[in-house]
Amino acid sequence: MPPATDAGAALVVLDLLGIFVFAISGALVAVRKHFDVFGVLVLAGTTGLGGGFLRDVLIDATPPAALADWRYLLVPIAAGLVTFAFHPTVGRLERVVNLSDAFGLSLFCVTGALKAVEYGLGPVPAALMGMVTGIGGGMVRDLLAGRPPEVFSGNLYATPALVGAGIAVGLDHLGMPFGVVAASGFGVCLALRLLAIALDLRAPKPRGPANV
Amino acid sequence: MPPATDAGAALVVLDLLGIFVFAISGALVAVRKHFDVFGVLVLAGTTGLGGGFLRDVLIDATPPAALADWRYLLVPIAAGLVTFAFHPTVGRLERVVNLSDAFGLSLFCVTGALKAVEYGLGPVPAALMGMVTGIGGGMVRDLLAGRPPEVFSGNLYATPALVGAGIAVGLDHLGMPFGVVAASGFGVCLALRLLAIALDLRAPKPRGPANV
Amino acid sequence: MPPATDAGAALVVLDLLGIFVFAISGALVAVRKHFDVFGVLVLAGTTGLGGGFLRDVLIDATPPAALADWRYLLVPIAAGLVTFAFHPTVGRLERVVNLSDAFGLSLFCVTGALKAVEYGLGPVPAALMGMVTGIGGGMVRDLLAGRPPEVFSGNLYATPALVGAGIAVGLDHLGMPFGVVAASGFGVCLALRLLAIALDLRAPKPRGPANV
Repeated sequence: MPPATDAGAALVVLDLLGIFVFAISGALVAVRKHFDVFGVLVLAGTTGLGGGFLRDVLIDATPPAALADWRYLLVPIAAGLVTFAFHPTVGRLERVVNLSDAFGLSLFCVTGALKAVEYGLGPVPAALMGMVTGIGGGMVRDLLAGRPPEVFSGNLYATPALVGAGIAVGLDHLGMPFGVVAASGFGVCLALRLLAIALDLRAPKPRGPANV
Repeated sequence: MPPATDAGAALVVLDLLGIFVFAISGALVAVRKHFDVFGVLVLAGTTGLGGGFLRDVLIDATPPAALADWRYLLVPIAAGLVTFAFHPTVGRLERVVNLSDAFGLSLFCVTGALKAVEYGLGPVPAALMGMVTGIGGGMVRDLLAGRPPEVFSGNLYATPALVGAGIAVGLDHLGMPFGVVAASGFGVCLALRLLAIALDLRAPKPRGPANV
Repeated sequence: MPPATDAGAALVVLDLLGIFVFAISGALVAVRKHFDVFGVLVLAGTTGLGGGFLRDVLIDATPPAALADWRYLLVPIAAGLVTFAFHPTVGRLERVVNLSDAFGLSLFCVTGALKAVEYGLGPVPAALMGMVTGIGGGMVRDLLAGRPPEVFSGNLYATPALVGAGIAVGLDHLGMPFGVVAASGFGVCLALRLLAIALDLRAPKPRGPANV
């Protein structure tokens, strides 16, 4: 990962921004499920941090970064409280939330994949861990809210994350500088995800009736 | 954690008691869902031990204590079998179960938080881990039983655990002796939780209709 | 675990076969839930690998083997794609899938239990980890698919895994050679599970109406 320089500081700020937008999507789901304020905060926290927790537990980077740095806990709490108080406004901004979510996804798939590489995983599992970092928080959110994971419902969401993570891992493997690696993975994931939203691209579903 | 003295032995007994009452609440949910005897035992086990497992995985204290000491496995099995055999009686005692549950919650939030401190977490994440230890088992129970986590449904449950854990971490941080730390955190959590049950205190819910 | 010999190679092949049949059962559930191709792949992967992941996280054998060896990722992907493309045919073969599943269960309960022993767990928790390895993937599958865990629904499934794992751990504890240990645990679990399917053996359910 980057050294403790301007690039490093910028990455932390981006990371916190990504957590913030994910946390808002979790808090909105909790409001719609009529959970209490605590449920809103927990769904904000698990959506914002869950993907990173899953990754850190699997690659043995525990305790997860978010438990070692209080800023990572403050951000989802702030997102949860804002959504709790102003949910009609936040709900109307859902299109903005969706676009921000694409930003968070693109960021997390790259940082997650590179962290897995740093912890010694091979290219294929590292790319998979990048995808898990991007989509894991939303999956935990849907589990806790008692609804089927949205990521399986058709609109292309996991694929951009996997492609972005794969590109980052591949370029890193080729020895490219960090800036190129990160920008390429991030850019490709973001472009694919925005395209998927704009054109309503859908992953193929099984054809024909399921044999039950 | 305390040394292997009388205090240590007392803490183990309290811990096992806490696991027992949590396990009974899990087994009752399984009975009402018409799960088989195995489902009753698994829900007893995950409810009794799940919070501690979550904490231990997150703070890297694996394998969890419950896997290293067979007494920790025996207790939820006993609770599950008792509930399976005598569920009409146990079900009628639900008020007693609820009060015992408050005792387990108060105990686990304190022991969980202090264990996290011992493993090097800062005060804020340690208090959070205390809350997770207290409420995690019930959340896993509700996930496995396919119902929304009860902890989000309104009655004050997580807040007492977070406050109790925070008090324990804070006093420990100030260098207070273990007895004072533990008794204060435990007592405050228990008092808040019993008040919440007695007065039906409820966490605030989002106001106004959710914008879907 | 066995050395890198013919026995070791045979064990890897068996392990991959077990993952394959588990992954197919996960993919079939996803098809019936109308998940998209990505959901089919994720359910194939979590069903095939989830039990081992749970075990490895709990016994601190992270990163899980499946993340260190790309063959373990390829197998569930292949199973998922095959099921996605040919699900009417695969669905009709469900009886074959169920029998193969018994094979996977018998294999995983033994390898899981012996791995836990290798990582220092005592006999009782090691047998429990063997059972978790066998049934965990299916439980994660049912959670993600939003249905109650099938393993709680009555037909004897977890019990054969626990008995097989217990036998393997017990014989290993007595110093028996690996072949005897593995064959006995595997054989007993398989025989019990096949009997349970053939005779529709059911675990007891709570008697009388649940007191709600």
